[in-house]
Amino acid sequence: MRLELDSQSLLAVALAEARKGLAEGGIPIGAAIFDASGRLVGAGHNRRVQDGDPSMHAETNAFRNAGRQRSYRKLIMVSTLAPCWYCSGLVRQFGFAKLLVGESRNFPGGLEWLRSLGVPVVDLNSDECVSLMAGYIRANPAVWNEDIGEE
Amino acid sequence: MRLELDSQSLLAVALAEARKGLAEGGIPIGAAIFDASGRLVGAGHNRRVQDGDPSMHAETNAFRNAGRQRSYRKLIMVSTLAPCWYCSGLVRQFGFAKLLVGESRNFPGGLEWLRSLGVPVVDLNSDECVSLMAGYIRANPAVWNEDIGEE
Repeated sequence: MRLELDSQSLLAVALAEARKGLAEGGIPIGAAIFDASGRLVGAGHNRRVQDGDPSMHAETNAFRNAGRQRSYRKLIMVSTLAPCWYCSGLVRQFGFAKLLVGESRNFPGGLEWLRSLGVPVVDLNSDECVSLMAGYIRANPAVWNEDIGEE
Repeated sequence: MRLELDSQSLLAVALAEARKGLAEGGIPIGAAIFDASGRLVGAGHNRRVQDGDPSMHAETNAFRNAGRQRSYRKLIMVSTLAPCWYCSGLVRQFGFAKLLVGESRNFPGGLEWLRSLGVPVVDLNSDECVSLMAGYIRANPAVWNEDIGEE
């Protein structure tokens, strides 16, 4: 157990989820929730296309898969992409200790809002995450716009 | 089809969902999504206890049950209780035309935030909704605190 968790290792788990989603024909966004010792509590990926379920953004799918938790105050939310308002609201409501994102170039989400509220946010600005998402958006603009409520 | 929808009739659908949740042993919060003509697009209720699923707040369950939608800009979100940050973020991200809530006395949620962003919010201040929720919170404080991420 390391006190200082390796951010890239945590992101790798979310990125593997994003790639799994892409392989299933879905939107390639992945997320994972870890405790302070680096233990994986839950992971998931966007399931809009696979399940016809608009509520399953990557972060909400990881949150679901983590099951009922008594507290989130020591847990870290990791996502390959900056969370939208829906998922930023999730991070705020449940008081996650920290948010780690792969990138915010394809979508800025609520990162600044969360920072302004005092939530520690780390943006790894990962080229791998940027290119995975940019490629999907280029090829599937309608699905992506639907996923974030843009017309 | 009436142009002026009857708010109490819309709330009644969400309230029936809340009562269904209570009968199942769950947290009595219900939600429903309607189009501008008053047609029901989706309804649901909190399913934390029933499914062991923390992601299914009433609003997110109604959102899921509505299935994939091309746009939410003409849809109304109705909930028996003011939506938490997670569900307020949902309303913002997907650009719902309006939010109608049964009450905000047991929980203020993100009503003021949504209003400040220009989202039309109507709070019916329903005694029936207030007493249903207050009774549940009094009898089940731990489950309620878990549902909103309070320790």
